[in-house]
This record gives sequence, C-alpha cells and structure tokens, in this order.
Amino acid sequence: MHLLDKIESPKELHKFDLQELRELAKEIRELILSTVADNGGHLAPSLGTVELTLALYSVFDFDNDKLVWDVGHQAYTHKILTGRRDNFHTLRTRGGIAGFPKISESKYDYFGVGHASTSISAALGLLIADELAYKKNHVVAVIGDGALTGGEAFEGLNHAGQLKKNLIVILNDNEMSIDKNVGALSEYLSQIRLAPQYRKAKRDFEELVKKIPIPGLGEKILTASNSIRHGLKSAIVQGAMFEVLGFTYLGPVDGHDIKAMQEIFNRVKDEMTEPVIIHVRTTKGKGYKPAEESPERFHGVGKFDKYTGEILKKPAPKSYTEIFSKAIVDCAKEDKNIVAITAAMPTGTGLKLFSELFPNRFFDVGIAEEHAITLAAGMAAGGLHPVVALYSTFAQRSYDQILHDVCLQNLPLTICLDRAGIVGEDGATHHGVFDFSYLRHIPNINILAPKDENELRQMIFAATLKRFPTVIRYPRGAGLGVKVVENPASLPWAKAEIISKISGEADASIFAVGTMVEVAKKAADILKNLRIYVNVVNARFVKPLDEDTIYELASNSKLVVTCEENILAGGFGSAIAEFLADSNIVKPILRFGIDDKFIEHGSRSELLRICGLTAENIADTIIDKLNNQH
Amino acid sequence: MHLLDKIESPKELHKFDLQELRELAKEIRELILSTVADNGGHLAPSLGTVELTLALYSVFDFDNDKLVWDVGHQAYTHKILTGRRDNFHTLRTRGGIAGFPKISESKYDYFGVGHASTSISAALGLLIADELAYKKNHVVAVIGDGALTGGEAFEGLNHAGQLKKNLIVILNDNEMSIDKNVGALSEYLSQIRLAPQYRKAKRDFEELVKKIPIPGLGEKILTASNSIRHGLKSAIVQGAMFEVLGFTYLGPVDGHDIKAMQEIFNRVKDEMTEPVIIHVRTTKGKGYKPAEESPERFHGVGKFDKYTGEILKKPAPKSYTEIFSKAIVDCAKEDKNIVAITAAMPTGTGLKLFSELFPNRFFDVGIAEEHAITLAAGMAAGGLHPVVALYSTFAQRSYDQILHDVCLQNLPLTICLDRAGIVGEDGATHHGVFDFSYLRHIPNINILAPKDENELRQMIFAATLKRFPTVIRYPRGAGLGVKVVENPASLPWAKAEIISKISGEADASIFAVGTMVEVAKKAADILKNLRIYVNVVNARFVKPLDEDTIYELASNSKLVVTCEENILAGGFGSAIAEFLADSNIVKPILRFGIDDKFIEHGSRSELLRICGLTAENIADTIIDKLNNQH
Repeated sequence: MHLLDKIESPKELHKFDLQELRELAKEIRELILSTVADNGGHLAPSLGTVELTLALYSVFDFDNDKLVWDVGHQAYTHKILTGRRDNFHTLRTRGGIAGFPKISESKYDYFGVGHASTSISAALGLLIADELAYKKNHVVAVIGDGALTGGEAFEGLNHAGQLKKNLIVILNDNEMSIDKNVGALSEYLSQIRLAPQYRKAKRDFEELVKKIPIPGLGEKILTASNSIRHGLKSAIVQGAMFEVLGFTYLGPVDGHDIKAMQEIFNRVKDEMTEPVIIHVRTTKGKGYKPAEESPERFHGVGKFDKYTGEILKKPAPKSYTEIFSKAIVDCAKEDKNIVAITAAMPTGTGLKLFSELFPNRFFDVGIAEEHAITLAAGMAAGGLHPVVALYSTFAQRSYDQILHDVCLQNLPLTICLDRAGIVGEDGATHHGVFDFSYLRHIPNINILAPKDENELRQMIFAATLKRFPTVIRYPRGAGLGVKVVENPASLPWAKAEIISKISGEADASIFAVGTMVEVAKKAADILKNLRIYVNVVNARFVKPLDEDTIYELASNSKLVVTCEENILAGGFGSAIAEFLADSNIVKPILRFGIDDKFIEHGSRSELLRICGLTAENIADTIIDKLNNQH
Repeated sequence: MHLLDKIESPKELHKFDLQELRELAKEIRELILSTVADNGGHLAPSLGTVELTLALYSVFDFDNDKLVWDVGHQAYTHKILTGRRDNFHTLRTRGGIAGFPKISESKYDYFGVGHASTSISAALGLLIADELAYKKNHVVAVIGDGALTGGEAFEGLNHAGQLKKNLIVILNDNEMSIDKNVGALSEYLSQIRLAPQYRKAKRDFEELVKKIPIPGLGEKILTASNSIRHGLKSAIVQGAMFEVLGFTYLGPVDGHDIKAMQEIFNRVKDEMTEPVIIHVRTTKGKGYKPAEESPERFHGVGKFDKYTGEILKKPAPKSYTEIFSKAIVDCAKEDKNIVAITAAMPTGTGLKLFSELFPNRFFDVGIAEEHAITLAAGMAAGGLHPVVALYSTFAQRSYDQILHDVCLQNLPLTICLDRAGIVGEDGATHHGVFDFSYLRHIPNINILAPKDENELRQMIFAATLKRFPTVIRYPRGAGLGVKVVENPASLPWAKAEIISKISGEADASIFAVGTMVEVAKKAADILKNLRIYVNVVNARFVKPLDEDTIYELASNSKLVVTCEENILAGGFGSAIAEFLADSNIVKPILRFGIDDKFIEHGSRSELLRICGLTAENIADTIIDKLNNQH
C-alpha cells in the first residue's frame, strides 16, 4: 500500500499521474476486498467504481466541489480516499465506519444516503445553495442505472433540466441494480451502446455525398440516408432520453479507463455550464473474478474467503426469507390468482424460486416501490391476489400508495416486509423499525408479525386467502429453527396466542409481537424464578388487535407490558395503550421497543441489547416498575 | 338535454354519429358548468376532456375494456355518461356523487383515484389481471401532462414499456398541471408540437435525392441531410421520450376534434398490440371563456356565477393560506437563506406572492413531492433554510424522504402542511387526517399546529429560525378572524399554552391541538355551566410534547382528554397516552379525533359533526366518562 498510505488529503490525487492512479486502484481494490471478506459489505458495487472515483478526485476539487453518491453502496473508494483509510477495517462494525456516506462521518460526505434515487434531487439542492451564496463550484451526482429506475430520479432530472443549472450527473451503468436490471430504460441504455454503428453510418453517408455529382449514386445515398435515420431511430439519438429532459449527454465512456474519464470530466468542468449527464460503463465486481461472475451474490455479502470467493455461512436455521420463498410457491400452486411482485430484489426477498416456477405471474418492476404497490392494487382490482415482497425500510417509499391505492379501496393483496426490525450492519438507513407506526393508523389494513418461521408460513397461507390488504413483517436472518408445518391450518384471524397464563391476578401481562415473543418468554422464566408471575401473549396481530384476549388478561394483571422490535411512538405498545384507554382499563403500562432516535450500525444482537430488547433488561425493568407502583 | 337524457348505457355512444356527439358535448358542458357553479368542483379540467371522453366511449367498449383516469378531476363527463347523470346535481355533497372516480360508486370506475400519477401503474395491473384470465379487452389510462411529472408515472411507463403489453396511455396535454406546468418534460412536449417541421424536412430531402444523379446537388443534399438531423435532434424524433421507454407514440391530435381522435383510437384498438401513448392536446376550461382565460382559478373552484364567472366568496376571515403567504414573505425579507418550494401549487399553497418577490429563491418542482423534499434536504445541507409548502394529503408521497433525507440528517427546514384535517368536498382521497400519525414517530421531527391564524404566523417565524426540521400543519379555509401580530415574538419552543386552569384537582384536563382548541374551549364553557370544571390546554406541539405542563395538569385531574383533527391511531392523543404511561400517570383517558375509517366527502362542518368533533359531543362524552369512573 505504498501509494495509498501517503494520501493525507484527496486533493493530492491531482498530482498523481495515470500510472500511479492505476497502481492506486489496485491497492484500493485489495483493501476493499480484504475488508469486506472480513466484515461483509457491498463488495461488487464498490469494486466497480474504483477507477471512476479516482478519475473524479483527480479532476474535481471536492474540498469545494460537491459529490453525492446515490444509495452509497459504491462509495468505499470515496471513503478510503477521504480520511477513512486507517479505520476502514472497522467498516460496518459498531462505532466504526458506516457502510454508507453519512454527513456526520466526514465533510466529504455532503449528503447521507442509503435509499435509492435521491442523489439528483439532493445534488441539485446543494448546487442551488452554492449558487445563492455566489459560489462557483461544481456539484456531481453519481447514480447507477438501477437507481435511475426510481421515479424520484426522474423527478430530479426533469426539474434540473428545466432549471438549466450546471448539475453534473454521472450515470454509473453496470447493467445491474442489485439483481439484473429491468425496465425499458435499461433496454434503452443497451441501445445507446450500439451507437458507434450510428456514428459510422453517418460518416459513410458523408463520404458518399462528397463523391457527388458522379451519376448513379442516388440509390446508394438514399440507402445510406435511410440507414442513418434507422440508426437514429434505434439508437434514438445519443442519449435522447436525457436530452429530452434538458441534459447534454456525453458518453458512453469506459468506467475502468481513468484517462478516458479524466478527459470527459475535464471537458465538462472547463467548458460546460448546462446540465450534463455522463454515461460511464462499469463492471460490477471489477477485478475480483468471483464477484464479476456473480455480481448479485457479491452485491451485499457476508464474510467470505477472499481466495476462493466462498461465502462463509454459519450453519443456521433456515432464514425467514427462505420460509417465505417456499411458502409463497406453495400458495401459488393452490391458487392461480396469486401473483408476485418485487422491486429489484428477486434474490433478497426470496422470490427467485417463484419467478422460475411461475414466470408469467412474476413481476420485477425495478427499484420502483411506488409503482410496485399501485401495480399490485390494479391487479387486485382486476381480481388477482398479488403478493408484494419488499424490505421494510424500502416500503417507506410506498406509504401513500399503500394508504391511497390499496387501503382506501380495501383491495385484496399481501405485502410481505422482510428485514423488519433491526437489520444490523447496514445501519440507520436500513433498519425496518418504523413499519408498525407508519402502517397501523391506516384504516382497513391488517398487520401481522410471526413469532417464528412456522408462524410466518401460517400467516402467508392465511393472508393470501383474505379479500383485504394484509402486511406481514418479519426479521432479517435465521428463524428459531422450529419445525415448519408444510400444510398449515388457516391461522385464526385477529387472534392472539396465549403462551402462558397465570390463574388469578398476574403480576404482569406481557404482550409481545414478532421476534419479541421469544424474548418475552425468557423474561417470564427469569421472573418466575424470582416468584413474579406473568402472562405471556404472542399478539400475532398488531391490527386488528385481539381485543378480547387483551381485555381479559390486562384486566387481571397489575401491570401491562408490551414488547416490539419497532419504534415506540405509534407502534404496537401504543396500540395497546390506546385500546386500554378506550376500554377504560386504567393500569400502569410498560412499553419495550425502540426509543425516539435513529439506531446506528452494528451487529443485530449488539443493537438489540442497546435498545434494551433483551430478556434480562425486560425482567429487570418489570421488577422496578412493580416495586414503584405504590 | 334531449340527447343526454336518452343515454341509458355508455355503450349507446357507439351509435351516435359525429353531429350527435358534438351536440352531446354541448349538453354535457352545460350540465358540468351549471352543476359546478352551484356545488363547486373541478371545472377547468373536466371541461377540457368532454370530447376526449366522448371519443373514448364511442370507440371502446368500457363494459369490457377498462379506463383509469389519473387524479380523476377531469372525469365528470365519464361520470355523467356512466349512470350518474341524474344524480350529478349532488356532486361533492354528502351522500352524493364523489368528486373523483371511486370503485364503490360505479362499475365503470375501475380504479379509484385522487392523488396524481397512479393511473399507468393501476391500468397495467388491470391489464395483467385480464391477460392472466385470458380476456382480450383493452385497458386505457388517461394522464395529464402535469401528473406525468410525478415519478410514479415514469416508473409505470418504464415497466409497461419493458413488458411490451398493449397498454394504451392517453396523454391529456393541456400545458397545465394545476398552475402552469413546469419541468423539462413540459418543454419537450412543446417541442413535439414543432415536429411537422421535421416531417417536411425529411420529405424535402427525399425529393432532392430523387433528382440525383444531376450534378451539383451534393451540397444541397448535405444541407438537407443536416437539416434532417437538426430537425431530429430538436424535435428529437416524434415522442422519443416515450419511444425510449418502449412505447409507440402517436399524435399530437386535437383533443376537441372527436373525429380525429376516433380515427386514432380505432387504429390503436384494431391494429396495435404494443404499448401505445396517444398525445392529445386539450384546452383546460374549453368552451367556457372565464375558465379558458384563467384555468388555474377554475381548476378547483367554489361556487360561482356561471354567467359572469365571478367566484362567490362569502365574506370571511382571512384563510390560513393567506396568512402563510404573507408570513413567509416577511420571514424571507429578514433572512436571505429562506427559499421556498412547491409541488405544482404556487396558488393553492399561497407561495405565489413569494415567487413574485423572490423569483430566484422560489422553486416549483411540478407534481413531484418526493423530489421536493429531497431537494429541500440538499438545500438545507448546503446552508439554506427551505420552506416546503404542500397539502397534507400529498405530503404522504414524501414520507420516506422526510424520514430518510431530512430527519435522519436532522436538517434545518420547515414543511408547511396546508389542508390538514378534514378538507370537505374533495373527500376521502384528500383529507389531511394522517399527518400527525405518519410523522410523529420519526426521530428529530418537530410537529406544530396553530390554534388560530395569529399562532400560525408565530410558528412560521419561530420554525424558520431553527436548525432542525419542523412541520407546521393547518386547516383549509378561513381562520378565526383574530388579529395577526405582524412582528411576533418567537414562540417558546415545545411549550403548550394553558388556556384555562382550575385551582386544585380538575374534573378533567383537555389537551387540544390546532383547530380543536377553539372547540375544546367551547366544550369547557358548556361543562362549566354544568359545574364540571376542566383545564384547557392548547398543546401547540405534537412533538416534542410540553411534558412538564402535561404532567402537572394530568396529575391534578380525574380524567385526561385529548382533541385533534387527525386519525386517532398513532396521533396526538396517542402521544399523550404514551407519555402518561411512560410517566407512570395512571389515569382514565378520553381521546377525540377521527376513528379508524376513511371519511367520505361532504362539507367540513358536517364531517366534523359526524366525527364527533363538536363542543357538544365532547362535553357530553366527558360527562358520561366521568359518570362511569367508579
């Protein structure tokens, strides 16, 4: 690392010659590879942008110019170059370097990211702020072809193009979002790559015309002219999509050719004052064979052997994702009206199996959660039962569609929210800890959370039989290892499960939901040893609540306790508090969940501990609360 | 109405000849005009689509084919033709015809709408459902050029283009969204209108080429060829924007020429199997001079004199919108870092004055709420203090951006939510009754609601001085008529206002917020006459709560009462219930707000009464509750 170790400030890259930059690229790749092999992380996207980042830093001055990465999982080189090289080994560990750009981490992280398609809007905002302050710097947004399918990116392009300000957008085109990219726009980007044919046709035509007035060439010219127009029509003018939106289009340029990129960047920096889009073609996973060959496996990856590319999985119970994957296929075999939708996550959500078995009933809409939900609503209005599988955090994008298109019309569909609760190393932008709160107040919605993987199987079966909207949310990672009944009986709707019940008045009733049921059981065991006797209820339903069970048990307890892996405000415990108030049950209430702040990155177990969501803390706090009541 | 009165089923339009359809258009226009003059409603958009709707119904068979209107404020002709003619006089009144298409109202309303940019996604869903059921019908979406600026429309086009299914999209291009349309796409649509020049250039060139091999024409050909390419580049191939996205583009066609539209629709219906976009140019307000001249005044309009076009305003106190309009200008004069953003609503939100005084600091992003918020976040990260003015219901589109781009980074900006609470005649799709619940659980957010227009003025002044995100929500329509202090002192942050306080233990403490403060005061007066003595608190802050005041008053009351014009689940009362639980204050709680269902259309006062949000109902219910404790 003899070159990388010397860099104190990214400005120094201006002095590096091409050979040195290429050497630096090698060193950075090695650092990224070995760190991600140890810590897990977004390997393939970040390997794809090493040269792009070096080219940007060698041309622009990001002490004054500003750079916004879309999503930010391709920004490791940026992090390494901007003061985070020495701590890079702490990537994604608690207290260490975050997996995504973050304003509080570095002055070079001009805008924090994590969700897709925000970079153009944010960069335009930064540019306007600089202009109003009479600053003369450049602002650059780097966005992948995947993120470009998100509607917000289009909104940003449309506005930036109209303002005619000097926003520089780098389109990092690797023909992938996370899985293989989809959408007409993606096909269009492929067409652009054919554009040299058009340029050649044009040259040929001009040569021919030069030879006039030699008789007999008319037909040839006509043919040539048609071929130009055909070329234009199929390649649709270089970058017409972007030209239409008011951008000057440049490229495509090889995103691993530093010199070629420097030339374009310099031209843009020195000569252009309008909105510019530079089309850069990169290879996801570049320089690491296993990642180049399986970019979706190495998009976001756990620990792996960097020599063999073998992913090091601890032997573990099946994940909730795997259970979902199988369950939805089983349901679809029984009911031909079941269709499945994903937003660029066939692998991550487990819908890949479904897509292979039912290709006509499977829809990957790209990174477009809003469309995913309204599309599903349309399908449901047309008589189907769509199952939309999203990550909890990304479903936030479709809040309005869930409310306005699905629930207002009470349409039959099932939304499966994977990665709900604390997700761990991806951190604050990715925790799925808001879903109970942003969904619970919507009329007509049903919200379920399974205590284990078998209950997930049951819930999927039950929800897909219903003629109204249901959301099922479940965590990242492994289940509890319980046996999954393949052909479950239908789950009784809006019924909680009483796990244990004290005869007579209990010291407390613990109402837990999802992952917290297991924790509550353990807390009850601890308390029992201390002769404190509590009821434990698996609520199953956050909405509608099983009011009878809650009424009965709460009435016969000194204390009501709620446990959820969700933000406390407006969540499950809040629902219980509301119900007790409305039912005239005046009791002390103790709520466990996530406090009113964003949770940083770290391992799931560390973070749950910090949030107080452990059996020990729950038991201790119950004891304190009981002691403090009179 | 001799023709209109005959129509029993829209199918009968197939038998009408052109002359009859034109006559029908006149009759329908007259019915729309006189109804909206009496009831208020979306006049200009619906007058613009009379011929378009007739042409659609005269060609397609919407007993089998399906039609989805985007937003739906242009769908009055559709409603009149599909069984709602005789009840059309009940438009927008309680129990009457809704202002927007609605599944429960007619089998011809295939998908309910209200928020913009959903039609393409929904229509695609309907089409897929029909295909999977082996049906052979057509599905048509009608979307305005305004709604097309919303990112979800782009997501839908991108997906539909990739699927290559026979979705028919009608682009209703009136060069307006609600105010004048903005965005590069809008400029592009203007360019398309120049396209005949390109077609002529092409013809000219071909003529020239035919004349070869006559010597000397080479230069002329070259010029002609350049002119083709220039024509292509400036008109960018007919509809390239849509061709890029996989659609075949047809048009533009005059949207008031029924015959021309019928020809295109027939061709599409009979010959085409791919995704098609038909560009139809219409005039907003067509056929009614005052609306043609001021389409933004007659977009959504109250009662007016149909002969003069004079809008009949009851003399009323200034609206909250007017107060906002003036206040934000005053603040911007003091602080040059204040910039303002609207999503296609400069008039509706009151930012028009700001835009005139500070054109460089004003940004209308089009119907693009997601971009509006992330743009503001970028500006705030760059040192500005943006004020984003949205309607509460439309801000639902930007939930994720408020959470992920603004609050996670704790950026300084102010979001002003107009039309919060019950909006009245626009109905279920437009009530702003969810904002407390979808915002309150977001860390770092501050949520305020003024009790009157003077407090709104104070809140705007205070919020724009802060270095963190604040949301201020206020209702549609007139304030209370109180005096507005032009240069207010800064509002003490997170402090409630005690309106009246009982010495010693009160029978109840009423914590009210926003519009409900006035109602709570009246309820307290009623109770006082019955010798029931209550504290009344204007909470001002839904987040952070004034915990000291709440603690003190709640501790000294037999009953805690909360009042809000918001859904009860997760709202202000829920926040109070959570706080009392966490503070170990075990008291009966009575919450007033909106129950767990969607509220239909009707006048604001009717709907508030139905929701129980009147002084009389609040007083009565408090009495019952007090009688039922012990």
